[in-house]
Formats: sequence, C-alpha cells, structure tokens
Amino acid sequence: MSEVVVKTRVRLARNLKDYPFECRLNADEKKEIAEKVCKILEKSEYDFTRYDMEKLSQVDKIALVERHLISPEFVSNNAGAVALISSNEEISIMLNEEDHIRLQIIKNGLFLEEAYEIADKLDDILSEKLEFAFSEKLGYLTQCPTNLGTAMRASVMLHLPALQKSHAVVRIGNNLSKLGLTIRGMYGESSKPSGALYQLSNQVTLGISEKAAIENLKNITNQLITQEIKSRASLSSDISVVDTVSRSLGILKTARIISSDEAMNLLSNVRFGVSVKLLETLSLDSIDELICEIQPASIMKKYGTELTVSERDIKRADFLREKLN
Amino acid sequence: MSEVVVKTRVRLARNLKDYPFECRLNADEKKEIAEKVCKILEKSEYDFTRYDMEKLSQVDKIALVERHLISPEFVSNNAGAVALISSNEEISIMLNEEDHIRLQIIKNGLFLEEAYEIADKLDDILSEKLEFAFSEKLGYLTQCPTNLGTAMRASVMLHLPALQKSHAVVRIGNNLSKLGLTIRGMYGESSKPSGALYQLSNQVTLGISEKAAIENLKNITNQLITQEIKSRASLSSDISVVDTVSRSLGILKTARIISSDEAMNLLSNVRFGVSVKLLETLSLDSIDELICEIQPASIMKKYGTELTVSERDIKRADFLREKLN
Repeated sequence: MSEVVVKTRVRLARNLKDYPFECRLNADEKKEIAEKVCKILEKSEYDFTRYDMEKLSQVDKIALVERHLISPEFVSNNAGAVALISSNEEISIMLNEEDHIRLQIIKNGLFLEEAYEIADKLDDILSEKLEFAFSEKLGYLTQCPTNLGTAMRASVMLHLPALQKSHAVVRIGNNLSKLGLTIRGMYGESSKPSGALYQLSNQVTLGISEKAAIENLKNITNQLITQEIKSRASLSSDISVVDTVSRSLGILKTARIISSDEAMNLLSNVRFGVSVKLLETLSLDSIDELICEIQPASIMKKYGTELTVSERDIKRADFLREKLN
Repeated sequence: MSEVVVKTRVRLARNLKDYPFECRLNADEKKEIAEKVCKILEKSEYDFTRYDMEKLSQVDKIALVERHLISPEFVSNNAGAVALISSNEEISIMLNEEDHIRLQIIKNGLFLEEAYEIADKLDDILSEKLEFAFSEKLGYLTQCPTNLGTAMRASVMLHLPALQKSHAVVRIGNNLSKLGLTIRGMYGESSKPSGALYQLSNQVTLGISEKAAIENLKNITNQLITQEIKSRASLSSDISVVDTVSRSLGILKTARIISSDEAMNLLSNVRFGVSVKLLETLSLDSIDELICEIQPASIMKKYGTELTVSERDIKRADFLREKLN
C-alpha cells in the first residue's frame, strides 16, 4: 500500500569486538575500521559509492540526509566517518556513526521482510571477515544501550494526512509505546512531522527476535493503513478537502517563491489527492521524488550552494513549476 | 487608462414640477410618473428594456445592483419603481428612486465628457415634454438637499491595488473632501472597498457647473492614475507581488469552493498582473466582466435562485474554472 507507506527502512548496528565504541575511538582507529569494512564490501556483489565525510561539503552532507541516506547526526562526524551508498540508493552503510557499522536498507513501499533479508545478507558478508561485539546474554553490543540485542531498527515512513487531520495520530502515538513502537517526524528523533509524513519504528531490541519485531511493526502498520484509508475515503467526498487538494496543486504550479515547509504541506495534500483519485495526472512516485528534491540542500546542490533562503525559495518555486506544468 | 479606470458613470437627478418628492408620492402617482417617462422614451432612438421592480424577484433585482444598473436602495422600492435599461447596459434610468428620475450613463474606461454628453441629450429629450422642478437660484430641486444644483453625480470606478497596498488610499481619501470629491467602495455609499475597487465622485453640486465638476473629477482622476501607475511599476518587480499575482490566478483556476470576497481579491490581483504585463493571456475586459459575474445574485441567476451560500460558492468556483482554463 504505497498510498500510505512511502518507504520501508531496516537498520542494523554492529561494532567490532577489538575496538572500543565510537566515542572512545581516535581518528586513526576510525580510519582503520572504515578501511577494513570498505575492503570487504569492495569485493562483494554490491556496487557502492564511497563518501568520506571529511571531504564532503556541508551542503552535500545535508543533501544525503534529505535523501535519508545518512543520519542528521552523521553530518558532524569527520575523520574516519564514511558512508557507502549503493547505486540505486537502496543500501547505505555508515561507518563510525554512533556504532562502528550501521547498515541500512531502504525500499519504496512496504517491504519489511525483503529489506531485512538484504540487511541480513550484508551482515553475513561482514561477519564472515569481522568479529562483532556480541554477548550470549545481551546479543549485539551497541554504544547506546537502547540498541542492545538485535541492534535492529525497522521503520516505515507513513503518509497520514487523514489521520493527521482528525488528530488521530497523537492518540495513536500515545498507545504505540505500549506496543514497543514509536511514531515521529520523517527525519527521525526530535524532528517534527512535515507534510503529514511520519516514521513508525520498533523501539524494543532486547528479548525479541528480528523476525518478531518486524512482524509486530508490520501488523501495526497494516492497522494504520486500514485506519488511514478509511479516513481518506470519508474525506475525499468533502468539498473543502477536494478544494484544498485542487488549490494545492494550483499553487505548486504557479508559486514564484515558496518555502520548503509550505511546499511539503502542499505536496502532502497533492499526494493525498492522487491516492484518492482526485488528481489523475500525477503518480505517487513522482510526488515522493519531489518531496526529496525540494529540500533545502537538494535545491542548493542543484542551483548553487551560495543561495540565500529567499533565492532558494525562488529556485524551489521555479523547479516545482517546471516539474508540474 | 482602463488599467486604472474600470468604469465612468454620470448620473442626473430630475423631479417633475407638478408632483411632490418621491417620499410623499402614493403608488398611483408613482405609476403615473413612470408611465409618462416611459412613454417619452419609447419614442426615442434608444432601445430600453423595462423592469418593474414589483414584478422582479429579489435575486433579479440584486443582480441588477451587482451590474451597477440600479442602486442598492432601489431594491426595496416597489409600486411605480421602474428601471429602463438600454440593451448595451450603457444607459439605465431609475424612476421613483430617491428622485422621480435618475438617469445614469456607464462607460467602460475613462469617458467623463462622453458620458455626460449622453446624459445631457437624454435630459433634453425629457425636458422637452416634462417640466422639471427647477429654481433660478438653486438649480434642479432634489429630494435630498445634497443633490441640489446640477443634481449631477459623476464618478469613476478605480482599480487601485498599488495605492491600497501602500495604504495611500486612506491618505488620499482624507484630502479629497477639500476638493469637493469623495472616494468609497464600489457599490457606493457605505460599501466597503472590495478587490481594491473604489468609486471616486464629485460631492458638490451647488455653485459649480456640470462641466467644471467633470473637469475637476477628471483632473483628480488623472493624478490618481499617475500615482497608481507609478506605484504599480515598483511593485511589479517585487518577487512577493509577482508570486501573489501568479498564485491568485492559480487558485482561481483550481478552487472548488470560493466566496465572492476571496474571488474579488484574487481577481483584483490578477487584474493588477494583467495591467503590468505579468500575465499575458488575459484581458482587462474579461476580468472586469468576471468581477460582475461572480457576484452572489449573478451566480444565482445563472445557476438557480435556491442555492445556499456554500452551493453558490461551489458554483462560483465551477464558473471561474470554466472561464479561466
């Protein structure tokens, strides 16, 4: 149901047994770890591009964050901090983020098992050559104790315009923690929901298998999909909602200056409109792509890194008019 | 300069010598007066349609107000209240409004002398057959003493988006009374300015000739045109103004429900955009026509008199999308 589930993400954290955790590593040790991992993966079937954080500009780093390929925290890491990103951007591996290795699989739509399978395979490739910090009792050892155990975080990015409109997301969020899940903004911890995009993820990594955690997340996701679709159906016949959807596309097609926040909200309305067949000429994929492309650093990468905020807002409007007209 | 002057209007008030003023007339006397005037004009070169107020529905009456063909006050007049409207809607004559005869000439654009000439000609036709209440000392006698003298009101409907934006209209309005002029909303006395449309008219009818009053109004109008055009020029390069103009057309083309107030303001922005060549595909005339056609009673005349406010707002949006796309 890609109307509701924009992306699936599975992330595994691993640390090498013979090194202290990241916060205790010096630059040389970080580089050593990075080289070891890179060397193994170079020989794998995957085609990775290597990004050394210390060599990237701030804009390039933030553009990777906007595409969900690295974490916001990774931007401030430097020496020895390396990201390996597969050509289709489905796999990204951060080395020396909070843990020595964080491997992440992203898929469009709801594909939790499939994403986990790829993560598991990469984990096998690495564990053949590397000895991970592991305890029989605690499972994988991680710098932050909240990840101990499976060290797996599985998440789905959900588009919930209808549940947001009815304020149901807040109520749902309050209940989810009892189920070992959490829901938050699209850029993870402490980010605000923008464009009705939410990230639902498992919180519990200890005392539960990867499969069980994924099963749990999938069940709740399916429940949310059902609720969202049901709410959308009743909204889609409401003339004020139809009006909002239609105007949103009208504004995106004609604005000459637009902030990323406003664009996100309008694109969210349009995405909703496409999903309930109010708008027929656009695809969900093209809107999801736009949602990435209109982010500030992505605009700067395209049009120039020296842009002021209002110049960027003008370029964003130009870009949207070009893409949508 | 029809970019600024939407319409010119000249109105003459006349009363028959042998009858009391309108507030003292009974229904029979009103009908007598109406018949007399109608009979004279039937034989004239003009092709009038006759509207008896007591036979018109409320919606039909208000639609005439929206087209500036009768006054809002005339809507509540009944027996003997007759409007004669020429086929091109340039001439409208109200019988038994505040005065026995109120004849009005409307022209698109700034044509004060031309409008006055037609009014004068009609006045001649009528005065050949009718004796008007006239005093050598006071001029034409009218029910309301503020019209004594020439009993002429000349006005121009001005589109002043730039002067409104800079709040200059208020300052200008305060100075105009010293010059014997007044500026107010588009539907005359006590109406609020909507869509940056204002009505500038002469206030003084005593001790000044028709020609002098028109000359005075024309001079001030030309000054306002110059100020407005100058202000527009500086606004038209402001990206936030360009954005507003572009979005306004975008919203008009896509809204599914829209109030007359919102539509007026958006059309005003579009009208400004056309005048400064930001929008190339529309004409001022077509927008001025839309400004009339989206008024509540005009929509009801077109789509049904039993419409609720929100049904009307939906029909208005449908109408605008159809006209603009």
